[in-house]
Amino acid sequence: MRRVRLSIVGFGTVGRWLATAIDRRRSWLEAECGVDVAIVAIATRRDGFVYREGGFDIAALLDSVAARRPLADTPNAQLWHTALQGLAATESDVLAEASNTNPREPQPALGHIRLALDRDMHVITSSKGACAVAAVDLAALARRRGVRFRMESTVMSGTPVLSTLREGLAGARVVGLRGILNGTANHILTRMAEGLDYPAALADAQARGYAEPDPSDDVEGHDVVAKARILAAVAFGRTVALEQVVCRGIGGITSDAVQQAMRDGSRLKLVASVRSRAEALEVRVEPIALPLAEPLSRVEGVMNALTIETDTVREITIIGPGAGPEQAGQGMFADLVSVLRAPRLLG
Amino acid sequence: MRRVRLSIVGFGTVGRWLATAIDRRRSWLEAECGVDVAIVAIATRRDGFVYREGGFDIAALLDSVAARRPLADTPNAQLWHTALQGLAATESDVLAEASNTNPREPQPALGHIRLALDRDMHVITSSKGACAVAAVDLAALARRRGVRFRMESTVMSGTPVLSTLREGLAGARVVGLRGILNGTANHILTRMAEGLDYPAALADAQARGYAEPDPSDDVEGHDVVAKARILAAVAFGRTVALEQVVCRGIGGITSDAVQQAMRDGSRLKLVASVRSRAEALEVRVEPIALPLAEPLSRVEGVMNALTIETDTVREITIIGPGAGPEQAGQGMFADLVSVLRAPRLLG
Repeated sequence: MRRVRLSIVGFGTVGRWLATAIDRRRSWLEAECGVDVAIVAIATRRDGFVYREGGFDIAALLDSVAARRPLADTPNAQLWHTALQGLAATESDVLAEASNTNPREPQPALGHIRLALDRDMHVITSSKGACAVAAVDLAALARRRGVRFRMESTVMSGTPVLSTLREGLAGARVVGLRGILNGTANHILTRMAEGLDYPAALADAQARGYAEPDPSDDVEGHDVVAKARILAAVAFGRTVALEQVVCRGIGGITSDAVQQAMRDGSRLKLVASVRSRAEALEVRVEPIALPLAEPLSRVEGVMNALTIETDTVREITIIGPGAGPEQAGQGMFADLVSVLRAPRLLG
Repeated sequence: MRRVRLSIVGFGTVGRWLATAIDRRRSWLEAECGVDVAIVAIATRRDGFVYREGGFDIAALLDSVAARRPLADTPNAQLWHTALQGLAATESDVLAEASNTNPREPQPALGHIRLALDRDMHVITSSKGACAVAAVDLAALARRRGVRFRMESTVMSGTPVLSTLREGLAGARVVGLRGILNGTANHILTRMAEGLDYPAALADAQARGYAEPDPSDDVEGHDVVAKARILAAVAFGRTVALEQVVCRGIGGITSDAVQQAMRDGSRLKLVASVRSRAEALEVRVEPIALPLAEPLSRVEGVMNALTIETDTVREITIIGPGAGPEQAGQGMFADLVSVLRAPRLLG
């Protein structure tokens, strides 16, 4: 049985879910991938980078975190002040980078990812900010180093869209993409379609825990912009600068506009689109009235969806949840399996 | 550049589309997978198994087929009477088996696939009949031989659902599946929802080329049963005997039943379902009135869709085309890429 050493940087709800899944699915990983995955490092802002060459006992680790005991108290653990220092000084095979999913801030995740790739580690990440800025560069770097770089959970969380583009539709030429990629914004528009005005719909989303106290990343489109840039990287191999994205959020949407769309037999949705136009790539995030014949128009509440148009299978649409620790953790787990299934790449 | 030798058995519209795609995407295959794919054998019932060690010129090959010239006339070609004889006597790395997609007949495809796997060849196939009967066994055989066995195009054609189950959702436990997996039956039910009676809707499907002169595989559910058995194999690792499947087709559906469903706020659809019940697997193909809240109820005409319920990402739904040479060819191409991307598995 090959032993695979995993370092997890960022141990919030997603990182902890991933650790739990590795523990719970241990026999599945052994049978399916022929590996024994050992978590050898955990890094958090509070604890620093804690390394244990023999691997952590995952149940005990999660107990420590729940009890807010310092991870550095783990027997036989070594401590570094920062994740960068720890990653540079220790040995592991895979980095799971889950430290920061802020769509507008690539750091510190980007630094961790680059360092790990430079050290010939495979990287799986949930960092939207880092991938929005650098997905093309990071994939190229991974390729040069002969390792894998995966980021499934950055777009639609655990609903598999990036693997669909890369593996499921391998070889097909993508012509265009359009999606509903933010559940909070979609929930607000769904509630407005039911008759609420914007402030009431936003308050409803906040009361349900869908929207942050400062909802700007969701309602102004920043989160969707990051995802659209990641989709452009995966589907077209292109880096899209922030300034190239046309972005209008839903903050200015009136009840009248929502109701008018319904009277016209359509639904107002915050739509991300990436489309190849001559030599350029057009990337837009904006409210659009979608006719009911389009599957995206029927996507309600916090659900997300992506329609992929290719030269061969024409349009396919994937509908699924777009957020949640369990979903994002599942996306990272699928990325991990993709790394583990690549036989030559490990050990 | 690694050279990969491909044998194509069955050279109808799907096999020819695959050959064309390999020719057209040659530089993509080189850049993405680091391989040069040579088609070294073509087998058809009419031509037998024609092998050319140096590889066929694909454009010339397609010209020959279009002009109905015997493939055995190709310079430097060797001929065997049957595909089985040719596969046993020659060397290649991958078998693309596209000889028979009849959902109720595993042969001759199954024999070709077993022989190829026994000879340590990777296999990609579009044979629904062979996979319905033997997908679990063939996957186990492939694993023992250290090769890959892929069958994406057997369910929903090029719309990637098997890779979604295996790779996109890797590690997630499937709880249940339900799908609209036959475009002909769905077109007929869609036309009936628009007011046609069954004979008129069937005649319309035949006039458009969606239904065969003998439509029984599509309308009696045999095609969907094969796909449901394949889904059971991929999602649950279980072989389902034909007798275990509850199957009712749409032949007996009346306009009244279709209209009554619409009055009830639902849509009558031919639904395949695979569900884990205690220790057993329940596999059913039957007309069901689906409430409009379910994405499947909105799938119209010849489109297909599959809803996958798992323990982690809950419900995801994939909507896309379910038939067509280009779609099936794309599914086989994605399978081929999956084989080519597995570095240790070749050469």
